[in-house]
Amino acid sequence: MNEQHIKALKAIVGEENCYDDIAHKLAYSYDATRNRYEPDAVIFPRDEQDVSQILAYCNTHRITITPRGAGSGFTGGALPINGGIILALEKHMNKILEIDMENMLARVQPGVVNKKFQQAVEEVGLFYPPDPASEEYSTLGGNVSENAGGMRAAKYGITKDFVMALRAVLPSGEIIRAGKKTIKDVAGYNVAGILIASEGTLAVITEITLKLLSKPKLRQSAMGVFPTIQAAMNAVYKTMSAGVTPVAMEFLDNLSIRAVEERFHKGLPKNAGAILITDVDGNLPEEIDYAINKIQEKFYENGCTEFKKATTDSEIADLWFARRNASQSITIYGSKKLNEDITVPRSKLPELLERIEQIAQKYSVVVPCFGHTGDGNVHTNVMVDGNDPKELEKGHLAITEIFKVAIELGGTLSGEHGIGIAKAPFMPLAFNESEMNLFRAIKKAFDPNNILNGGKMGL
Amino acid sequence: MNEQHIKALKAIVGEENCYDDIAHKLAYSYDATRNRYEPDAVIFPRDEQDVSQILAYCNTHRITITPRGAGSGFTGGALPINGGIILALEKHMNKILEIDMENMLARVQPGVVNKKFQQAVEEVGLFYPPDPASEEYSTLGGNVSENAGGMRAAKYGITKDFVMALRAVLPSGEIIRAGKKTIKDVAGYNVAGILIASEGTLAVITEITLKLLSKPKLRQSAMGVFPTIQAAMNAVYKTMSAGVTPVAMEFLDNLSIRAVEERFHKGLPKNAGAILITDVDGNLPEEIDYAINKIQEKFYENGCTEFKKATTDSEIADLWFARRNASQSITIYGSKKLNEDITVPRSKLPELLERIEQIAQKYSVVVPCFGHTGDGNVHTNVMVDGNDPKELEKGHLAITEIFKVAIELGGTLSGEHGIGIAKAPFMPLAFNESEMNLFRAIKKAFDPNNILNGGKMGL
Repeated sequence: MNEQHIKALKAIVGEENCYDDIAHKLAYSYDATRNRYEPDAVIFPRDEQDVSQILAYCNTHRITITPRGAGSGFTGGALPINGGIILALEKHMNKILEIDMENMLARVQPGVVNKKFQQAVEEVGLFYPPDPASEEYSTLGGNVSENAGGMRAAKYGITKDFVMALRAVLPSGEIIRAGKKTIKDVAGYNVAGILIASEGTLAVITEITLKLLSKPKLRQSAMGVFPTIQAAMNAVYKTMSAGVTPVAMEFLDNLSIRAVEERFHKGLPKNAGAILITDVDGNLPEEIDYAINKIQEKFYENGCTEFKKATTDSEIADLWFARRNASQSITIYGSKKLNEDITVPRSKLPELLERIEQIAQKYSVVVPCFGHTGDGNVHTNVMVDGNDPKELEKGHLAITEIFKVAIELGGTLSGEHGIGIAKAPFMPLAFNESEMNLFRAIKKAFDPNNILNGGKMGL
Repeated sequence: MNEQHIKALKAIVGEENCYDDIAHKLAYSYDATRNRYEPDAVIFPRDEQDVSQILAYCNTHRITITPRGAGSGFTGGALPINGGIILALEKHMNKILEIDMENMLARVQPGVVNKKFQQAVEEVGLFYPPDPASEEYSTLGGNVSENAGGMRAAKYGITKDFVMALRAVLPSGEIIRAGKKTIKDVAGYNVAGILIASEGTLAVITEITLKLLSKPKLRQSAMGVFPTIQAAMNAVYKTMSAGVTPVAMEFLDNLSIRAVEERFHKGLPKNAGAILITDVDGNLPEEIDYAINKIQEKFYENGCTEFKKATTDSEIADLWFARRNASQSITIYGSKKLNEDITVPRSKLPELLERIEQIAQKYSVVVPCFGHTGDGNVHTNVMVDGNDPKELEKGHLAITEIFKVAIELGGTLSGEHGIGIAKAPFMPLAFNESEMNLFRAIKKAFDPNNILNGGKMGL
């Protein structure tokens, strides 16, 4: 990018919203992958019109654009790997535009932080279920672009299940609307559906209409202790298919339990093969009792040795402490965590966990696992010494084998983190050449000059 | 199409599965629009391999293909408007391949009839909610291609909410897989999402993986009588936003009530402005009571003059009789029914119905309305004398105005019937040129030679 480009972009958004100094370039060179790529400039659009003009200009001059929310992604979706500009949407385009109680929906700009949005709708008795672990800082635009999941997906689904409509700007600068404020809409192709999870490669999302639910009045949590990981995994899918739908059904394996216990001394069962932590909600005490009792029954049928209920807020928080602190605790096993989020059909969880153990043994690596078993989503963490190239190589070989097993079991490379650059090399494991070519044709239909977040998703 | 083409296609599927005689051409020239277009040939593929070979051949020779399930669509999606071949999927590709109880999903071929599938999964305690009015004959492939809705959409959503994965054949003959047997999958673009509701214009669906739920054990229905249509429409959206989610929330206006009563003498309230018929389900009597009582409370708050509960199967059937027979009964008002399925945000229902009444008066046409108010979907039926060209023209003018009002109120041209050819002329009311061009680019990405169901959806 030359000086003239910077000047032209400043003319669009104002001097105060376009920077090419080293401080800004550094500040926007990272994401949660800890990789670093410097952009040529950082631009803060004020509104959709700014986005439209910026894209039109960049399209004409073939300048690469990387849209960015909070930069909290795990796969590099917001990294400017080819330079160009970072389009930072969190600064100005971060307003909740409307909470429509009558139709139970909200309109937001992409830069709204997930948790702030959850709180705003809960204040008026409504409920937005998607709760990625990054909820405190990740933005709704990022959530839509990556199709973020979370703990409550087992009952409520993921981001895509709540997106009713989008406004977006095409690389040409044209503004499009996709979807409606209606539950049903079958006019035209489902453009909103394909923008979700497209990782900012097709268009820049400028407004999101989200479906809301009524906030359930009651909640109860419980924990089950299992002698082996296989017993726990059997319990998961047998409970889920027994006519009860817990909000969440999370697990920690023995390595994860030990790690949390070593750090925090919470009295967790250190010798358990796994623990399952579950949550149910509803409006009636009878619903809650029915669900918890059903879960307890199914857990005991599958080898559970201890079942602990939690009802008060502090009891619930205690129970969830282990799960919430698993990710940071397992760093005791190695300085570098190669964390993936493979997902398989629930009935394949016992086999998946068994084969991960075999792979860990084969490569002599430690692989603590935890995650959202209620929807078959397992966070596998291959822990290695980040300063030892041999260890790193071993780790990557183990990861590759884990991906292969997930695909073989009918699963996917990623349940919620996306592909970005981190998983791009593994796309051919999951997709054949016809499927990859179709992705490329779709990309070209939206972005013929490849100016939008190029080089992502293995395209 | 010349004789050589027929010969080549017969070589693929066998003599007994390819016909160009007049009987077959006539039998496959219709759909529920009652328009007629004769294909040049009718082919019954035996499996995905047949579909692949047929498409590859037709792509090379630029022969138009119209995929077809039961031909029960209301908008002409299955009509061979440009001749070519009808690819009839209901004859051989109609098998339920798998009901996976452990993961609560099923794999089916596209030609499986919706109701047969519902029954098959209910036999093993599972539940497939989408229940279009055509459920007795429409196929799941057609349901996916049109994104069919139904009565239970208010609580459970529509076809798209149950599609986990698809197998499909691209116009090139290439076989692709889209989606997974997992609840979460964010690897690659959401190709399954864009194939849903694409009306057979992008690819031929050869296998569908559908999510299933547990069958709720209990069900109760109720009817509310309202003095005016506005009171009923207010009750709809105020009930739905009060923290209760009925399975269905259907309505009949005064004209529809009178029509059913004239035909069937069921003792319906002939002077009511509207009736609302609702259904709740659950596993516990307490849940059912909570929901029904909440609905009753909200109905009475909004002017309901009579609230009638039904608990036994025969009481429930009686209550639903009026709704199920509305469509055929209103033909007393005219020989030709111009029926549309506009959908608006629920809070706009009172205004929508008021403005439909004004339009009916302006053009002196009778417009009975009924439908799925729980999701804002209103079946508006402009009744005219089909043999009177002036009447027909008036009717079309009225329909055009109704579409404009729906769009103005933030709604859509179609909640569940699709666009096909019937609503193609109205696409510019709903979409701007950028949006239409994007649809065309998407079409081209999948089908560069435009061999698949061309001329549909206004593209």
